Amino acid sequence: MADIRFHDPQIEMAHGAGGKASRRLIEGLVVPLFAGSLRGPLGDSAIVGMDGARLAFTTDSFVVRPLRFPGGSIGELAVNGTVNDLAVSGARPLALLTAFVLESGLSTEALEVEIRTIAAAARRAGVEVMGGDTKVVEHGKADGMYITSTGIGLIDSRVNCSPKAVRPGDQIILSGPIGDHGITILLARGEIDLEADLCSDTRPVLPFVESLIDAVPVGLRWMRDPTRGGVASALNELAADSGLGIVLSEEKIPVRDQVRGACELLGLEPLHIANEGQFIAVVAPECAEEALAAVQRVPGGEQAVIIGEVRAEPRRTVLAASAYGGTRVVDMLVGDPLPRIC
Amino acid sequence: MADIRFHDPQIEMAHGAGGKASRRLIEGLVVPLFAGSLRGPLGDSAIVGMDGARLAFTTDSFVVRPLRFPGGSIGELAVNGTVNDLAVSGARPLALLTAFVLESGLSTEALEVEIRTIAAAARRAGVEVMGGDTKVVEHGKADGMYITSTGIGLIDSRVNCSPKAVRPGDQIILSGPIGDHGITILLARGEIDLEADLCSDTRPVLPFVESLIDAVPVGLRWMRDPTRGGVASALNELAADSGLGIVLSEEKIPVRDQVRGACELLGLEPLHIANEGQFIAVVAPECAEEALAAVQRVPGGEQAVIIGEVRAEPRRTVLAASAYGGTRVVDMLVGDPLPRIC
Repeated sequence: MADIRFHDPQIEMAHGAGGKASRRLIEGLVVPLFAGSLRGPLGDSAIVGMDGARLAFTTDSFVVRPLRFPGGSIGELAVNGTVNDLAVSGARPLALLTAFVLESGLSTEALEVEIRTIAAAARRAGVEVMGGDTKVVEHGKADGMYITSTGIGLIDSRVNCSPKAVRPGDQIILSGPIGDHGITILLARGEIDLEADLCSDTRPVLPFVESLIDAVPVGLRWMRDPTRGGVASALNELAADSGLGIVLSEEKIPVRDQVRGACELLGLEPLHIANEGQFIAVVAPECAEEALAAVQRVPGGEQAVIIGEVRAEPRRTVLAASAYGGTRVVDMLVGDPLPRIC
Repeated sequence: MADIRFHDPQIEMAHGAGGKASRRLIEGLVVPLFAGSLRGPLGDSAIVGMDGARLAFTTDSFVVRPLRFPGGSIGELAVNGTVNDLAVSGARPLALLTAFVLESGLSTEALEVEIRTIAAAARRAGVEVMGGDTKVVEHGKADGMYITSTGIGLIDSRVNCSPKAVRPGDQIILSGPIGDHGITILLARGEIDLEADLCSDTRPVLPFVESLIDAVPVGLRWMRDPTRGGVASALNELAADSGLGIVLSEEKIPVRDQVRGACELLGLEPLHIANEGQFIAVVAPECAEEALAAVQRVPGGEQAVIIGEVRAEPRRTVLAASAYGGTRVVDMLVGDPLPRIC
């Protein structure tokens, strides 16, 4: 019997936000119903064994509004998002597919711009778009376009990352400033009276991950790209899945002034804001400095930093410690303050 | 320079219908822009080489209205459609992923029913759903849900199908009656005053394909599941891609009375109507009878039939010959008389 624990009567925006409600939906409904079929939580790459090799296989739908924003567009998110899901699974992408749901009445020019963007982003990430699909729905649906991007990649045989590999004392590396993507989307919608010189951070994290794997193949325990739900949700999932605690040094977490300002004004937590070009790696303490240097020496990784560590206690909890000695619990994202940011 | 030949100013429903307009969009815009990246027309499975093995990789978005209909539902189409794309590429499915775009306000019950349907369809096709994604868009978008289904499969090493392998004299096998799916959807919408005892034909065609490959591994030239755009569009694509002609024996093409009646009433061509559980195989003449028997002996394949043959002339054209000696040109689907049937 499927152990269904999800009893919300209907689907709400928060169920797609990547935080607590998303996890309840996936773990309480989707996973139990796929039981026997599905072997782990939906979300990251699935792993398919083949002749001793391991393939990573991942899919994501992109429904971001607006379609284009400072620093990127839906097509660029679709490529980088999929490449990054593969990268944090330790996989080098072999091929991408893109499926479009187009709104009738969309200008051909808008579609052309996105296809060019996808082709360029794929070239930059060193992967081929090998096929896809196109459906059209009536005008008024689909906000121009939704894109579902799927990738397969070959997992580096040296990589053995999982929440179960994480140990107390492990160090947590973050690749750069957080919240740029989510706040950029929020400002691009023009619904709040705030301007800031800010761009989405969308980019492939593959070069950083490859440098990291080469530098510390054995000490690398876990990786994740903190997209929807932000760094807080990613680390809370790690805490829950590993049964361990995580303590962050609040003052070490890089946040741009524009992001911090917007968050303060709007009552948002930077650790909950989505990123599209950052990643978190958990590494063994003895190789933490070497791992950090490996990320920092790749162009674009200069701001990488160790933001905290794994502890035995408090179990299944993420804490942020201030420079003044206080600590606070950092929970998963609850609700959906910034809908449709990817 | 990309050779862009698509100059329609905006996207219309017909561009998603699987006929002439779809082919113009894909070949005139998508393929040229992905040039250097994309190696063939978008649509079928992409082929990825890996250590001597060949992987088939395919994705499709499903936007059918209504979500449930006699004989199936969007979730069942998503699984069978992907399994069938792999099957006609000669591949046995290894894994599926499903990405949902859900409409805010969708009842949890409706989602639960589709997830159960997907899990059951995957079990029936002998494949695992290994992961996916969930996004939520505002109420009024997405008609309940859209599902993008992606599959990877391992191509049988004996299979070498392609339009270029097809020769004059080759025989064309069709697995069963055509048009059931498209007409079922049309009637399920209740927009026309017509009732008929008819069900969608959605099913996995994998068992038929496997029997066929075992029986005539060498003589098998080309396979396709004639979904959007119907048998006519699939065979016109083969004619165009092979440079050969195709002559069908009109009276041999199985069409149920209910489908024929609805088509006559509505001025539709059964050869243009979508199928979701049929396939077409082109086989060498010397093994045609053996190939037909291999399909017919699998339960559900009893109505398989040879519907025509490949000829050198008329090049790039599909003809239907009547029992009385007349012939007519069977063109690709033009426009979109039945929007959103998958």
